[in-house]
Order: sequence, then C-alpha cells, then structure tokens
Amino acid sequence: MADPLAGIAELDLDRTERRGFPEAVFCAGKTPEQVGKIAAAVAERPDLVTLFTRASAEHAAAVLAVLPDAFHDADAGLLAWPPKPPSPTGGLVVVLAAGTSDLAVAREAHLTAGFLGRRSELVVDVGVAGLHRILARVDLLRQARVVVVAAGMDGALPSVVAGLTAAPVVGVPTSVGYGAAFSGLAPLLTMLNACAPGVSVVNIDNGYGAGHLAAQIAAPVTEETR
Amino acid sequence: MADPLAGIAELDLDRTERRGFPEAVFCAGKTPEQVGKIAAAVAERPDLVTLFTRASAEHAAAVLAVLPDAFHDADAGLLAWPPKPPSPTGGLVVVLAAGTSDLAVAREAHLTAGFLGRRSELVVDVGVAGLHRILARVDLLRQARVVVVAAGMDGALPSVVAGLTAAPVVGVPTSVGYGAAFSGLAPLLTMLNACAPGVSVVNIDNGYGAGHLAAQIAAPVTEETR
Amino acid sequence: MADPLAGIAELDLDRTERRGFPEAVFCAGKTPEQVGKIAAAVAERPDLVTLFTRASAEHAAAVLAVLPDAFHDADAGLLAWPPKPPSPTGGLVVVLAAGTSDLAVAREAHLTAGFLGRRSELVVDVGVAGLHRILARVDLLRQARVVVVAAGMDGALPSVVAGLTAAPVVGVPTSVGYGAAFSGLAPLLTMLNACAPGVSVVNIDNGYGAGHLAAQIAAPVTEETR
Amino acid sequence: MADPLAGIAELDLDRTERRGFPEAVFCAGKTPEQVGKIAAAVAERPDLVTLFTRASAEHAAAVLAVLPDAFHDADAGLLAWPPKPPSPTGGLVVVLAAGTSDLAVAREAHLTAGFLGRRSELVVDVGVAGLHRILARVDLLRQARVVVVAAGMDGALPSVVAGLTAAPVVGVPTSVGYGAAFSGLAPLLTMLNACAPGVSVVNIDNGYGAGHLAAQIAAPVTEETR
Amino acid sequence: MADPLAGIAELDLDRTERRGFPEAVFCAGKTPEQVGKIAAAVAERPDLVTLFTRASAEHAAAVLAVLPDAFHDADAGLLAWPPKPPSPTGGLVVVLAAGTSDLAVAREAHLTAGFLGRRSELVVDVGVAGLHRILARVDLLRQARVVVVAAGMDGALPSVVAGLTAAPVVGVPTSVGYGAAFSGLAPLLTMLNACAPGVSVVNIDNGYGAGHLAAQIAAPVTEETR
Amino acid sequence: MADPLAGIAELDLDRTERRGFPEAVFCAGKTPEQVGKIAAAVAERPDLVTLFTRASAEHAAAVLAVLPDAFHDADAGLLAWPPKPPSPTGGLVVVLAAGTSDLAVAREAHLTAGFLGRRSELVVDVGVAGLHRILARVDLLRQARVVVVAAGMDGALPSVVAGLTAAPVVGVPTSVGYGAAFSGLAPLLTMLNACAPGVSVVNIDNGYGAGHLAAQIAAPVTEETR
Amino acid sequence: MADPLAGIAELDLDRTERRGFPEAVFCAGKTPEQVGKIAAAVAERPDLVTLFTRASAEHAAAVLAVLPDAFHDADAGLLAWPPKPPSPTGGLVVVLAAGTSDLAVAREAHLTAGFLGRRSELVVDVGVAGLHRILARVDLLRQARVVVVAAGMDGALPSVVAGLTAAPVVGVPTSVGYGAAFSGLAPLLTMLNACAPGVSVVNIDNGYGAGHLAAQIAAPVTEETR
Amino acid sequence: MADPLAGIAELDLDRTERRGFPEAVFCAGKTPEQVGKIAAAVAERPDLVTLFTRASAEHAAAVLAVLPDAFHDADAGLLAWPPKPPSPTGGLVVVLAAGTSDLAVAREAHLTAGFLGRRSELVVDVGVAGLHRILARVDLLRQARVVVVAAGMDGALPSVVAGLTAAPVVGVPTSVGYGAAFSGLAPLLTMLNACAPGVSVVNIDNGYGAGHLAAQIAAPVTEETR
Repeated sequence: MADPLAGIAELDLDRTERRGFPEAVFCAGKTPEQVGKIAAAVAERPDLVTLFTRASAEHAAAVLAVLPDAFHDADAGLLAWPPKPPSPTGGLVVVLAAGTSDLAVAREAHLTAGFLGRRSELVVDVGVAGLHRILARVDLLRQARVVVVAAGMDGALPSVVAGLTAAPVVGVPTSVGYGAAFSGLAPLLTMLNACAPGVSVVNIDNGYGAGHLAAQIAAPVTEETR
Repeated sequence: MADPLAGIAELDLDRTERRGFPEAVFCAGKTPEQVGKIAAAVAERPDLVTLFTRASAEHAAAVLAVLPDAFHDADAGLLAWPPKPPSPTGGLVVVLAAGTSDLAVAREAHLTAGFLGRRSELVVDVGVAGLHRILARVDLLRQARVVVVAAGMDGALPSVVAGLTAAPVVGVPTSVGYGAAFSGLAPLLTMLNACAPGVSVVNIDNGYGAGHLAAQIAAPVTEETR
Repeated sequence: MADPLAGIAELDLDRTERRGFPEAVFCAGKTPEQVGKIAAAVAERPDLVTLFTRASAEHAAAVLAVLPDAFHDADAGLLAWPPKPPSPTGGLVVVLAAGTSDLAVAREAHLTAGFLGRRSELVVDVGVAGLHRILARVDLLRQARVVVVAAGMDGALPSVVAGLTAAPVVGVPTSVGYGAAFSGLAPLLTMLNACAPGVSVVNIDNGYGAGHLAAQIAAPVTEETR
Repeated sequence: MADPLAGIAELDLDRTERRGFPEAVFCAGKTPEQVGKIAAAVAERPDLVTLFTRASAEHAAAVLAVLPDAFHDADAGLLAWPPKPPSPTGGLVVVLAAGTSDLAVAREAHLTAGFLGRRSELVVDVGVAGLHRILARVDLLRQARVVVVAAGMDGALPSVVAGLTAAPVVGVPTSVGYGAAFSGLAPLLTMLNACAPGVSVVNIDNGYGAGHLAAQIAAPVTEETR
Repeated sequence: MADPLAGIAELDLDRTERRGFPEAVFCAGKTPEQVGKIAAAVAERPDLVTLFTRASAEHAAAVLAVLPDAFHDADAGLLAWPPKPPSPTGGLVVVLAAGTSDLAVAREAHLTAGFLGRRSELVVDVGVAGLHRILARVDLLRQARVVVVAAGMDGALPSVVAGLTAAPVVGVPTSVGYGAAFSGLAPLLTMLNACAPGVSVVNIDNGYGAGHLAAQIAAPVTEETR
Repeated sequence: MADPLAGIAELDLDRTERRGFPEAVFCAGKTPEQVGKIAAAVAERPDLVTLFTRASAEHAAAVLAVLPDAFHDADAGLLAWPPKPPSPTGGLVVVLAAGTSDLAVAREAHLTAGFLGRRSELVVDVGVAGLHRILARVDLLRQARVVVVAAGMDGALPSVVAGLTAAPVVGVPTSVGYGAAFSGLAPLLTMLNACAPGVSVVNIDNGYGAGHLAAQIAAPVTEETR
Repeated sequence: MADPLAGIAELDLDRTERRGFPEAVFCAGKTPEQVGKIAAAVAERPDLVTLFTRASAEHAAAVLAVLPDAFHDADAGLLAWPPKPPSPTGGLVVVLAAGTSDLAVAREAHLTAGFLGRRSELVVDVGVAGLHRILARVDLLRQARVVVVAAGMDGALPSVVAGLTAAPVVGVPTSVGYGAAFSGLAPLLTMLNACAPGVSVVNIDNGYGAGHLAAQIAAPVTEETR
Repeated sequence: MADPLAGIAELDLDRTERRGFPEAVFCAGKTPEQVGKIAAAVAERPDLVTLFTRASAEHAAAVLAVLPDAFHDADAGLLAWPPKPPSPTGGLVVVLAAGTSDLAVAREAHLTAGFLGRRSELVVDVGVAGLHRILARVDLLRQARVVVVAAGMDGALPSVVAGLTAAPVVGVPTSVGYGAAFSGLAPLLTMLNACAPGVSVVNIDNGYGAGHLAAQIAAPVTEETR
C-alpha cells in the first residue's frame, strides 16, 4: 500500500522505544494540508502520545478534522492525542512565568511535561521586580526535581531561582518586550550568563522544548540509569 | 576581628546548605591578590568543597601559595580544595568532547561533576564527521543520567546525541573554529536550535557550568524531591 | 522599434552562450507589471529556458497571463518556460530536506536542477534527530555527483552527510524555526562551520541558487574543461 | 603666546560654568605625550577639578610627571587633580558591585561621584545568586538619592535593586564573563530591559559616566531648578 | 473568595508603599481579556494610580469597558486611572522630541511623569539638523531637574543637550528611521556612547520607562534621602 | 495668530538660506494628519521647494488634498511642490540601478537630484553578473560629476564603477534579497568595504539622501567655495 | 598495546575509504604536544596523505620533530605528509586571490587541492577595482572545472567571476580589511548574496575547506557517480 | 626580464590615467617583504604618486629601506612617494577631528587629500559636547567644497556639521570608545542615520578613503564633467 506521507514526512515511530519519549509534530512551516495528513497517520497509532506544537488556528482545524477529540490549547498552540495525559511518574516539575505576558510559553511547557508523564505545577507573575512573590514560593521550589522559568524582558528570574534551590533550572526566554529585547535575544543572553550555576537555556519561546527537557530530568530512575 | 575580605568579596558560605552545592570562585576579572585572599579564607573552612575556575597561571600560583596541596588542572584552569573529590552518589554523568580542541572545556565539566559528587566518564573525539565513533558509544549513552557535550565549529553533536538517548543533554559550545564561528556563537546557536528535543545550553566554554548542572540533574533523589 | 523593457530591465540574453546556463528572473522586489513585461519579452525567445523565481501569486498570474502553459509550482514560487525540462545529462543531483518544513526550498532546488538539465532525486524528512533515516540512504548518496541539503533549525544535516560521501555538499539554510534561529542565521552559521570538509553554503532559502550550483557541479565534462 | 595644545586638543574650560561639572580627559586613544601636554595645561588652572579617565600605566606616568601629587587609582585607571575631593553636598550616592570582578568599574564610579562633590558609599559582592546579601542592605538603599549598580554576566542586579527602592538606578554593565556575555553586551541588554522601571544604563565599563550621572542626580537643588 | 486574577497575574499592590511609585500594567503580550480582568481588579482600588502602557485599541477597549472614565491617549498607547494626575511636586521634567516622528514616545514620557506627580513640559522638533531650535531653549533646559530626550535616526540630540545643562539627561531611542537604524539600535548605541557625560539610556520606544525615571530623579527630597 | 503646527513640528524655513537646499518632510512615523498640516503650511510658501519622502498612499492623499497639483511618484514614495523641478545647474548626476528590484530607490535619488537643481540620468539593470552592461556605459560614467549606485544583494556594483571613473560614487544599499542580505545589511557592508577608493555610503533604501548628496557634490562652484 | 592517542584523539583512518579523501588535523585549539602525538601516529601510516592545517610555528615544530621531511608552508599554516602531492587526476582547479592580502588563504586552498590530487593554478591580485586584470584571465577561467576565489574587503570578485564562466565558484572570505569588514563578515555576506548564481561559500579564511571542496568538485567521474 | 612582483601583486599602473588618481598600497595583511618588493617597483616609476596606507613600523621600515626619502607619518600609518605633495588645485577640503582620540584618522584623511592635490585644513577637538567650538568655525565650513569629519563614540558631529553648511560631509567613524561603541560600529550607524541630509560614510578608521573621496569631490571641474 502506498505511504500516504510519501514526499511529505517520515514519522519517527520508533522514537518512543529509542528515547522513551514520543515524537512531536512542529507545525510552523508546514501547510495545514501536510499537518492534516500527519494527523491521519497518527490516528492509526492510538498507542503513541503525539503532540502538535506551534499550531496556528488553521493547523489546529486540520488536526481536529481528523482527531476531533484531541486536546487543544489555543494560547499555547498545542494539541495532544490522546487527549488525556498519562498517569504521572517521577519527580515534580515546577513551571514559573515571570509575568502574565510569559504565560502562553509557560503553559506550553507545563502541558508538555504533563503529557510526557510528569506532575507539573504552574505559577504565574513572580518576576524579580517584586521579590516577595518568588520568596513566598521557596518551599515549592525545594520540592521540585526541576524548575522551568519562562521570562522575557531582562530574563533575570532564572538567576534568582537558581540561587534558591538545588534543582536544575531550565530557562525559556520569551519574545515579549520593548525594542532592545530584540525578540527574545536579551533574556536569552541573560539566562546564558546566569551568575548562579545551575541554569541552562532552550530556544526563545520554546515552551515545548523546556517541558520535554524537564520531563527527561524528572523522569523516574530506570534500571539502566541507576 | 576585621574581615580580611572586606571591600573585596563576601563569600556565600551558606550556599551548600541552601542549594546543596558549594560556591565556586570565578577567577577571571579578579586580581591574583584578590584570589589569594579568598583562598586564605577558604583554608579556614576545610569542611567546604571549593572550586576555583577560569584560573590563569597567576591565579593558580596565588591559590597554591596558600593551599599548596590543592588539586590543579592547568588546561582546564581549575583548582579544587580539598584535593580529593567526595565519594560519588547519584547517577552517571557522561561528558563528550566532539574534537580534541574541545577537550579542555570537556575536562572542566568532567572534573566539576566529580568534585560535586558524581561518577563521570569522559569520551573524546566523537564528532559527527565520522558517525561510527558516536554510534559505538550508544550503550554508554543509555546508562547516563545526563550527557554533557562540548563542541565547537558546527556544534552538531548534541542534536545527534539527543536523538540516541532518553537522558537530557547539556550542550557547551566552545570557542574554537574558523572566523564565522564567531568565537562560539555558531555552535551556541546550533545547540539552541537542536532539532531533537532534550538539549539545553550553557555559556560558551563554560565547562564548569555544564558540570555543575550535570551534577544537579544526576543528583540522588532526596526525601524532599521524591 | 522601441524596447518594451526600456527603463525596466536589460535581459542578459547571451548568458546561455557565455555561461552555459540561462538567466532567471528574480521576482521579489519587482512589480507584477514589470514581471509581466519581462515574460512578454521571454515569449519571443522560445529557444531559451527561463525560470521565474520567488514569484508570489500576483507575479505568477502576470507570467501566466502571457505564458499560460508555463510550468508553475506555487509552493516553491517557481515558474519555468518552456514547461518541460530538457533531457538530462551529466551526473546525479540528490536533494535532501531535513524536515517537512524545508520542503518548499528543497523542491525549488530539485526543480531548478531539472530545468537546467540534470537528473535529480528528492528525499524528505531525514534530519539528524533520527539518524537511521539518513543512514538508510547512504547508497543513494554515494551515487550522487553532488548533494544539496536544505535544513533549518540546527542545520546539522550537511555535516553528517558530508561525512558519509565523497560528493560535494551544498547547504541551503532555511528560515523556519524558533526565535534563536534568527530567520535562518543559525543554520547558515552551522553549515559554514561544518566540521566535515566538503560543505559549502548558499543564501538562506535560496533553493534556486543551490539547484543552479548543483547543475553546474554535475554538468557533463566538456572539451574545454577536460 | 602659542597655544601648547594647538593641533592636539581644545580644553572646554567653561564647562564648569556652563554645566556645573568640570571636564574629564578620556585617555584611551590618546598618546601619553598628548595626555602629558594636557596635564601641563591643567596644572595652570588649580581652580578646576580635572579627572583623567581610562588611564593606562603610561598615561598615568605622563600625568604624574607633571602633577606628581595627583590622586591615582591604578585599578580604576583614574587620576584626579587636585588630589582631594571637595566637601560633599547634595544626596547620598550608593555604588554596588555585583561581584568582585566588577570592583574596578564600581570604584571608578564611586571615586568620580566623590570628586564631583557627593557622599558615596561602595558595597561589594551583592549579586543575585545569594539574595540575602542585597536584602541585608535595603536600609542603605532607601537612604540613597541614586544607586549605581555595576554588574557583568547576567546583569540582573539593577532589576532587583530597582524593585526595592524609590531611588533611580544607574546600571553599568561590565565586560567580565564567559563568551556569550559578548564583552558586556549581555548585561547591557539585561539592564535596558529591566522589568522594574527606574533603571537607566550607561556604556559598558563606563564607571566614570555612571559616577558623573549619579553626581548630577544627587546634586543639591539650586535656585534655578527649584 | 476566589482571586479573580488567579493564574493570570499577581498585582504588586505594595509597590507604592515600597517604592513610592505605583505599578503599571504592560499590555503588550497580554490578551485583552487578561487586561480587562486586571482593570476590574484595579477598579476596586481607587486609592492607587494605575497606568496601562503599550495598549493597543483592543486593550484600550477592554480597559474602558471597566473604567469608562479612564484617561486614554491612543497615540501613546497609554491609559491612566484615576484620570486626573495628582498635584505636582518636586522639580521640573522637560521632555524633548527630536522630530515629529518621535512625538508618540515623547508624549508617553511626558504623560507618565505627570501621572507620577511631576510638572512636565514637552517640546517638539528640536533635532540637531537645525541647531538654532535647541539653542533657543537653553533657558528652559537650565530650569529642568531632568531632561528626557526622545530621538530616532542618529539619536544625536542627547549628546548636544547634555553639553548645555547641568541636569541629567535620559535618552529614549525611537524605532523610526531608514533601514540601518535597525529599529532603534542605531540611536540606542549613539546615546550609550554620548561624548558628553550625563546621559543614560532606557529601552527603545520606552517612553513610560523614561517618564518614570524622570519622575524619580525629580522627586522631592524626603527625610530619608536628605 | 496661533501656529497651526504647534506641538507637531517646527519647519526649518531658513534651511535654504543656511544650507542652499530646502527641507524635506520625512513622512514615515508621522500620521497622515500631521503630514497634511505640514503640507498646509508649505502651501503658504510657494518660494520654497519642498519634498515629501517615504510617503505611503495615505500620506500622499493627505498632501494631495492640500496641494492637488503636487508631483507624485508612488513607487518612489515621493511628492514635490512646486511640481516642476528648477532649471538645472552644475554637473551631471548619473544614477544606476543594479537590477530592476533597485529601481524604486534609484528613482527616488534621480528625482531628488532633479528637484534640487541638477541634470540627472538614470540607467537600469547594469549589475555585475553581466559586466558588458556597465562597460557599455563607461563614456556616460566619465561625464558624471558624481555617480549614485543603488544595489541590493551583493552590493558589488559601486566597487566596479569606482574603478572605472574619476567621479565620486555614492552607494545606496537596497533591502531586496534573500535572507542573508538581512534587509540591506549585506550590500551596506559591501559598499563600506569597497576595494576601490571613492565610494561612500548612505542609509539602506535612502534614495532621497543619495540624491541630495549628489546634488551637493555636483553643485556649481560658488564664490565662497572657489 | 595501549593507544598512544587515548584521551586525546581518535583518528578517522577509514575516511579515505569512506569518502575518498584523507583526514586533516586542525591544529588550532590543540596543544603542540597533542599535535606531536598525532604526527607520531601518522608516521606509522605512510599510505595515507595527511594535512595539518592552521598550524602555528609551535605546532609545525612539533610535527617536524616527528616527520622532518614533511612539506611545510608557514604562510599558509599548512604541513603535508608525505611531502609530495599525488599525480593529479580530474579537472583543473583555478584559485584566485583578489589582493596580495588574500594570498595566504589562497595558497592554502591551492596547496590543499594539489595534495588531494588535482591540478591547480593560482592567480594573484585580480580584484574588481581594476577589471582589466580579471578580464585578461577569461580563457583560463573557462578551462576550470571549479574556481576558488579568496577575497576580503568587499568580497565582490566571486560575483564577477561567476558571471564570466560556467564553472562553479567557491568563495572564501578573508579577514583582512578596515573595521566594518568585521573580520571577514562583510565579504562573507557579499558572497552569500552574489547576484550571479553559481557561487557558494565556505568559512572565513578557510582555504583548506575551499581547496578540499574544489578537489571534490573537480574529481574524476567514477563508476558509481557516472 | 622576470616580473619581480610575480605571484605577489599586479600594480594597477594605469589607474592614474583611467581614474585620475594613483593607486595606494594597503599594507595591512601584507608581509613587510611583500611591501618592500612593491616599494622597489614603485621606485622605478617616479612619475607616479604612491601612498602606502595602514603601514606598521615594520612595513614602514621596509619601504624606507628602498625609498629613504619617502614621507612618513607614523601616527597615521602613512607613507608617500615622492615626499612632496603636488601643487593644489580645485576646492578646499576641511577635515575635522571630533576629539583628540580621532586625530590619527583625521590626519590620514588630511594628508591623503593633500597628496592627491587639494588644499586641506585640519581642525581638532570640536565635538558636540561643547557646541561653541564648532559654531566658531562656521565661516571655515562654508568655504569648504567638502568637509571630512572623523568621530568616534556617538559620532554625532557629522549631523551637526551637515546642518551648518551646503558642502557634502564625509563621515569617518573611528574605533575609539567604551565597550558599546563596538570598535566603531556605533558611530558608523550614527553617521548612516544622520538626520541632516548631506552625510555619507566610509569605513571605520578609513582616513585614507575619506581623504581620497574628498579629493575627488573637490577636484577641479574638467572639460569632460563640465
């Protein structure tokens, strides 16, 4: 039988086996038609968790036409199939949004961690301009196996958080801000230069990447990695 | 008694308690005299592990004048006191150097992870120009709780490694390369844009930061973070 | 008779004789009216192959109004007249798209190579996150006289391909990706810094340029260049 | 009489009258001979405070050959004549150095504010990786009419300080750090993007500029500006 | 009672007490719904001055639906509640717009300073291409406690103004200009490199930040900061 | 009588006397209303030549509502009043457009030179990919008092032209091209680095600036500058 | 027997078989000791051509201590073993240096092509400021199977050459020039934006990469790639 | 007879005839030996004016060994042969140095204009921080046929000068300044964005280029360009 994705995509169906985490479909740069065909292929593999990331309204419509029950968060541009996340295992993921403007990216990380099998807690509007807000969450931070911090503008929150906890911090710079934020370059550089060790960084606005990494870090220890 | 560090530095002696990891002394930008005074203060706290990073020959001499038995790796610019790493706990850290030119940075990461209490294994010259070299290490990669990858030039190795293992990958771009590497900017961007999820990035040539982060990720699970 | 292109363009009609390859009309930055006038001039020279590149829907309509039978690939923004490519000569061109999002650029290269007289084969979705996909094509790669690789994000595929074949590799960075891809700058730098020798690079999203160059590299050896 | 500075410089001797602050001589890019001639001209105007900034050892020697009693701080690259600062007026200037590596720049700001007539207090090593250090200085911050913050790496301290005080904050990015600090670009961008309003920024390593500005902000209110 | 802002924002209601200046709501990156909910929370605190900055027409509509009497300046993207600025105290703020194209940003600074309690005067079209225009305002400049200068293109006006007055100058680069202005980068760099000391810089187009800072600099001297 | 431009603009009416060239109104960043008011003020000074540059369709409508007979070139975004250029004096200005895509910018330069009183000749599509086209114009180039060259992409034409003539060359980089042209940055750098002396550069797409400068260079020698 | 390169390097000895071209040792970033050990390993494989690139005087001494008869070109930083290039096969490589300052890089390309088995001809000082120089070499260009062009400053020569020949052009930007060449960035961008198709680009100053690529392009056609 | 420059350089001896201006030898990137050989070739053509630019002490020694009477200005890195400039013709060139740190570049421009046959006047230390200094030179500016302005830091002087005179202004950014001057990038951008029309720009620190261009602009009108 002809491969319906021929000339379009080659799904990496063994990824779950090889890496322990399923593939995601990055929608930006694909036509809705292409995304729809991929969704149709996904529909035939109910055993696999699949995420569709960076999905515009048109992308989402194409997916939902095939998988009408899929989970969809329009702000985060995320769809998931099957629509229920698995029962969580491993450690706690804490996701912080420095400001309300960072919320969409933080939600993408939070949801991704959940769909990849982790408990995740989301906290909003704890930027460094009012330190009392983050200081009030130190107990939560110390329970985390990993902390994801989404921040735009000065991107200063990861440095402060890393100074307060033993957990590794994953910084996600966001693209909101005034002109000299240069669409996320400023917080990206801030986070790369965090004066507290324990911060690493993923791409600008890449909530999916941060959530995936957090799910890996907080994964249960296996026989192989004991 | 007057503080001998007054006007120079304020050691963060509680960091071990607060974060579970000791402070390091970043020597670049400090005078050897300042570093020597800090070493003297350290000498009075044998209970704390202290690392001196980015130490030039002059910095090292100033430390060794006070702590003659300190561990010193000149290539990596690293000193440690006490000179023996603690007994390792937690998971395995694997550190890869894409080429021989990335070795100094990779050693800094490898040694840091060890002094912060982890088992660490260092593998050299496994760049993507000859894929058979990294493919021969897949078994080792799958035992790792975290993989650190130091790479300059195209910085492509973290993407490839992340596709081969469930462990999170910490990329450390290095500054060696031809002109358009722009002193590490090129591999930095490559790693931030890794097409395989599971890669996060620390600063250019920051082997210390990578090793510290790896030690956090591979730390034993505690009561609090269970 | 007045030149209908006066004040607009001066076609380089001798280019085929001088260089062995015909001129192409870069439509971006031209008005549809200007492109239409050029198409009219082209219509009078059926002996020449002419490509219209970077053609928007408006540009395409202006060309098709004059040359209704012209070949048109809307995704690749390409038109060709006459609509049939010549019989192929020379060596094989292999064009790879790292992901589905790179497909439009890869198609532009693939079609250009064909219209300039080469056999060309297009392979999709063979990015380095799942190495088995490219490793399964090694036999094809070794038959190629030249390999074109279109890749966005980390742009790592050309390095890997260059390590697998004796053929020269032409990298085409694409502009799709998260923020720190900086509209193609990241894969551009990656490819310029390829750790495997044998990679050269053309402009971001310039599938036409890659296909043209590939056609030149794979051209049959002439008396003059024997 | 011939002007001994002809063809070299034209001192702005009226600046004190026009602006209320004397001229400074920026030594970088001038030859020691040129600086020496300017010092000789200064020697004839004991009524004016003159600062020599960014003075290398050679520049300093040239000044001291003419003005042997001048004040000289080699770390900060600063000389002053006359060597005693005036009696302070106006409000308090507080200068913070995030780390020891920022000390030279912070001292330049601190000394400049003093020589321009302000009380100034210098505090070292209060970076955000250990928040308790800056929180312990809140009382001092609230007495300041202006706070100068010198910080390299992530440059996060000004944001935190601005959130703690009503005084305006002048950020001075410093050039010390790992590669992706890009010689001060990273903290410069951080400070420009401070999420707390009340931060403005001067040039990288420009302690003189920060100190001058602080002296202006904390100047006593005059009849004219009442 | 449930917090209506739960999961969206955490207002920093103590900021006035802590810093002496109220919080502002940065609308860019927030949805109109989120801004509307914040406006509703603000409506219950008539004792606090609140500014909404960077408000699009949609944001403004959401605010005005809840606070129909709020002050609104569409060009500056600013709303204020209560709609009347407080009686002014402290020194004079002078705001200059180098050209008409800089007027929106200058108005944002001017209005912000007024709503934060200062007298403010706005002067338009005094760029350095016709020096007589700024020279005619020297008397006004000398009455200012602080001067805000909004300028795009070459951003040269702050240097000239700083040479004419004892007051500190706050530069606000604007994003209008030809291509090599790079959306405000050019005037930003110009201002950071002002050859006259006394200039500091805020983010591109950040009239709010400039006005806030000016209000702080020109604030009345308090007991604490005497 | 109240100034109808109060709070909007301050026309530099003496510029013609002071500089010998009239003011132009840069429309980008101004509202159509503001431009309309300026046009109304211009209407009262028929003795002055006024150009409106970077005028969108809305700007143009606002001008033409007040000055219905004004000259308008929509492609170049230019309006002029009075609509006839003065009788030319001085030397010849030659304007070259490397490709058709550079024509709008080249026309802006050509028209500006004409309205400022020079003879100007425009030549299109003489890029370096077909050298015979520029070599065929060497005679014309040698009659020019100044040559303006508009070029995007590689921006190589000014170097070649400067090697062929004694006249100074004014390069105008244009923003058309593939991604790594970075909206005109690439040809801007090329022109700044021209290997043939005699090239200077104006801003990206700034045809007005190039035409103005050319008009100055080719101006008739006056008593004063003899 | 213990591997003398253990922990330093892993030579890719099969590269010749796999790719048809031998490995080269990139010396920059390696210590002379490391390079010396690699040379010793090379000494045992006389059947393989080995190049040492980017070799400083210290690197060269370390190689020559082990391989005293190795070929050494100090200007190009290149050593080769065995010292004689193989008998040439395939097509002609023409290498152009735009100016004398580009000669070292051009020589590296020229020598590399020779040691990898091609005929190569080197032509110096044919920059576009004096077009007659390159026009005098058109016959040679038309005999080439590939043309390598090393150029700094404006990097305009590849565009001109590509317009004159059917052969593919490999551009090598060099780092010599005034400040706004940004160490080779300017010619790099010029070449990426070449208005004539047929130009691809390698890294700044990477003569080795250009020569290697040229050797691949001009390689004799094999059974496999026929 | 063998060409002593074979393989090194090809002098463009016809340039004077073709362009009216002689060739200059750019020494940076050439070895002293190469420069010495070129000087020897020059020695045989006493009819040609030759400049050696960007000459280090070693370059200068190599030239002076062959041409001991050559003119040499070590600060400007310039040598000229024959050592006397020709009798001046054409209009006046005025060269301004904004500060003493810009003097070397300004002198290079001033000397170049003189050796290419123009009257030239050099004025030092007239930066915009003290406007009275440039305002005192308005009469001189109005006599100039062209004004060259060398400025670092904010690079604001050309905008101000262009507003004061009808003559074209050639801006030369210099590389002296604090960190965010980015080695001349800041003043380069400022000058490209000059708000007053009439400014064009040459490369950073390129005094030679500015002087050459000024000599062309101020050249006497010829029969051909009348």
